[in-house]
Amino acid sequence: MSLTNQLSKQERESGSQFAPKFDSQGLLSAVGVDAETKEVLVLAFMNDEALAKTRTTGVVHFWSRSRGKLWMKGETSGNVLRVERILVDCDQDALLIHASPAGPTCHTGERSCFYRELRPEADDSSALVKVKT
Amino acid sequence: MSLTNQLSKQERESGSQFAPKFDSQGLLSAVGVDAETKEVLVLAFMNDEALAKTRTTGVVHFWSRSRGKLWMKGETSGNVLRVERILVDCDQDALLIHASPAGPTCHTGERSCFYRELRPEADDSSALVKVKT
Repeated sequence: MSLTNQLSKQERESGSQFAPKFDSQGLLSAVGVDAETKEVLVLAFMNDEALAKTRTTGVVHFWSRSRGKLWMKGETSGNVLRVERILVDCDQDALLIHASPAGPTCHTGERSCFYRELRPEADDSSALVKVKT
Repeated sequence: MSLTNQLSKQERESGSQFAPKFDSQGLLSAVGVDAETKEVLVLAFMNDEALAKTRTTGVVHFWSRSRGKLWMKGETSGNVLRVERILVDCDQDALLIHASPAGPTCHTGERSCFYRELRPEADDSSALVKVKT
């Protein structure tokens, strides 16, 4: 982690050094997309351990903020996300993971966690409608 | 915000009520994709004000954690993200925004903030390679 703070803005944004910028809670954001269809499947967080596990195993791991524990995506359902590519954003505090899903990514059984649309003109009490995913 | 805590897990995940779940810092995650190409452009955070502005203006606003202020994407460059659709994830703590970008989304001039790939086998000091975006 010490390398992180040594980087200039230019080195961080333009360089080839990977220096993930974890936030004050030790987390960075990770969005998982289907490597084939490019559909956004899930957005979650990684701490350094989840990132390391993801890189060494080739299977996506997250840090669950609600449960306070490391979590292999699909550890219960078997619907793991196999890493195909990892992309890093400009300031290195977010990752974009292209992955091959073994099954529906969402624990609800939906292919993507983003299965509802917010209708712009509706009252919040009935603003969400199911979309095809 | 009070509605948020009244929802059961099932209501939150299956219902039509929009009750965004802001984290302990008052933020939720938002990923912006190109409405046409589906390319992931940016991942950032919204507080309740940024979300409200995004909904009322139809242009994406974020909360900058580093600068501690509300920020209209493209306010300096003109490269705003015009909202086409907003999708909500299962536990309502993340948004997926399909948007029409007025120009390159990244402040570096790249179309997407995710313009570098993490090479799996390389040493971190030289692990990032530029990709075509």
